[in-house]
Amino acid sequence: MAILCRPAVAVPEHVVTLEETLDLARRIHADHPHLPLVLRLIRHTGVGKRHIIRPMAETLEHDGFEIRNRVYEEHAKQRVPEVVRQALANARLRTEDIDLIVYVSCTGFMMPSMTAWLINTMDFDPETRQLPIAQLGCAAGGAAINRSHDFCTAHPDKNALIVACEFCSLCYQPTDLDVGQLLSDGLFGDGIAAAVVRGDGGSGIRLERNGSHLVPGTEDWISYAVKATGFHFQLDKRVPGTMEQLAPVLSDLAESHGWDASALDFYIVHAGGPRLLDDLVTYLKVPPEVFRYSKSTLTEYGNIASALVLDALDRLFEHGEMTDSARGMIAGFGPGITAEMTVGTWQANGGVGSGGGGAD
Amino acid sequence: MAILCRPAVAVPEHVVTLEETLDLARRIHADHPHLPLVLRLIRHTGVGKRHIIRPMAETLEHDGFEIRNRVYEEHAKQRVPEVVRQALANARLRTEDIDLIVYVSCTGFMMPSMTAWLINTMDFDPETRQLPIAQLGCAAGGAAINRSHDFCTAHPDKNALIVACEFCSLCYQPTDLDVGQLLSDGLFGDGIAAAVVRGDGGSGIRLERNGSHLVPGTEDWISYAVKATGFHFQLDKRVPGTMEQLAPVLSDLAESHGWDASALDFYIVHAGGPRLLDDLVTYLKVPPEVFRYSKSTLTEYGNIASALVLDALDRLFEHGEMTDSARGMIAGFGPGITAEMTVGTWQANGGVGSGGGGAD
Repeated sequence: MAILCRPAVAVPEHVVTLEETLDLARRIHADHPHLPLVLRLIRHTGVGKRHIIRPMAETLEHDGFEIRNRVYEEHAKQRVPEVVRQALANARLRTEDIDLIVYVSCTGFMMPSMTAWLINTMDFDPETRQLPIAQLGCAAGGAAINRSHDFCTAHPDKNALIVACEFCSLCYQPTDLDVGQLLSDGLFGDGIAAAVVRGDGGSGIRLERNGSHLVPGTEDWISYAVKATGFHFQLDKRVPGTMEQLAPVLSDLAESHGWDASALDFYIVHAGGPRLLDDLVTYLKVPPEVFRYSKSTLTEYGNIASALVLDALDRLFEHGEMTDSARGMIAGFGPGITAEMTVGTWQANGGVGSGGGGAD
Repeated sequence: MAILCRPAVAVPEHVVTLEETLDLARRIHADHPHLPLVLRLIRHTGVGKRHIIRPMAETLEHDGFEIRNRVYEEHAKQRVPEVVRQALANARLRTEDIDLIVYVSCTGFMMPSMTAWLINTMDFDPETRQLPIAQLGCAAGGAAINRSHDFCTAHPDKNALIVACEFCSLCYQPTDLDVGQLLSDGLFGDGIAAAVVRGDGGSGIRLERNGSHLVPGTEDWISYAVKATGFHFQLDKRVPGTMEQLAPVLSDLAESHGWDASALDFYIVHAGGPRLLDDLVTYLKVPPEVFRYSKSTLTEYGNIASALVLDALDRLFEHGEMTDSARGMIAGFGPGITAEMTVGTWQANGGVGSGGGGAD
């Protein structure tokens, strides 16, 4: 049965604090008619600091889509391998044990994707399947877990490696001045996360049932405008209210598994902003503490897109004091609006070859 | 056991013949130092005609990456639904029977991807999983089959829909003048294909074992340069010789399934060019006729990227006169250089609930 092992995470060395972000907004957008609103929204993100791959001066200067994609490639190649090595070590596996690499990233575009480079450079087996996903945005972290779960359910003797590499700072667009876009400038951060889903054995979260949900009629609420200047993130003001529609979907998945969503032992969710978490507390009838790891990621790293759920999950491993058989849910949210969710059980001791049924 | 049902295919109404392509090359590149070589290479592609979404005059004029992506979106929304409806009819399923949509396309970029629009517009269930793949190029047709196979192996009560939508004419780059790029201008065509992989029941190819292979050290042989002007296709002159390395990989997959690659009843391969097929004949020790459907697609539509294997497969359904239990292989090749392969058996009568084991 598929086990999601402890993730590895890295954030870049350049730090931007909330106060620096607010100062920048005041300086760059001094004449913006909605500056006070923008400052208030940024303050309310709950983001205390973020990490970015280049110093702020370079980040603010748009050097063109071509150069940005080259910077993406250069930094991904420089930063991803160490995170992958740590994720493999966490799963007690080696590169040759991996059968599928799911690489998710919506902040740079390469073809062939980083999967080919990783296989060549880190001595993965040439037979390793490649699954690069660029178009699921922040939901891709959850999707990567779920497709890895499906793969390991189909092939219980195989293992999948998930890599989420997001350099959101490379999507900064100086000419984008909508309130939602200026808010995003203060919300997103850069980060890399990786985790292994083992088909059998290992410690972590036993993945038991996954699901996906598209909220009808919300395609243009979170989207990219694709232009000569690259990807332009567009955020509708209705997005923060989405949890009213998605909380029942999370409850339904838990219920289909015979569980009560309001009585789970842990939750790892994509915290795109604080309102999402507050609403989940209300609609799922859970104590706010249940989202403390998701919230910590948001506070310390900002919204790091598809890498967020893996970082929050790493914090659960670090501090969660989970007992065997603790029950929980992981959910990523992103464009569509799409939710990618899974329910699973904490498995403390690595039962190699333990088998077991019940997977959906 | 997963069954790949008969695909549906559509090509656009604007036709470009080989002679028109050669005339264009002579006119546009009259002063190119390697024009005779380019003309000879284009003549040798074996492409008799291609179909494109816009008239040639519009196609040749680069109207910017932003507009091209909008044209992509507009034409995809206009043209994909009918192909999807036909693929569903071929599989005797309705939209509500589909649990996963794998949408593959490397010639336009949307976020959210077309999967969200299809779910909303064609009344697929909101719970349908979305798997958009943009970075596997021509290999994505094979990858879509294989990931659908894995999904249906994990969930035998579920069904996957594959959609391959490629408007290669939107990647025409007037400023690209390398011989490989000029050759590509005469090779690629536009096309849309869709097919259902049923978890159980249905007629078609019973998918039995899939595999992937990355040829080491060939990442820059087929690639995109991503620029403000969009995706720039780059083709290394060593690509046509790749089959010497990939034929043994195809043989190994057949052998791991207890089959002899030189004695299969059918082959559906991504025929990127005629040399690939000739070399496969040599290295696999098979008669040239075995690739007649792949070759027909190349001749009539050109290289339609990830849609090619599905179109060739449609021709097998149309003309193949397969008998029950005929054995064959499907293989897509693309950037990486990556091969995505599967072996399967013809299943003429739809054995609903027939079960059966042996899936890898």
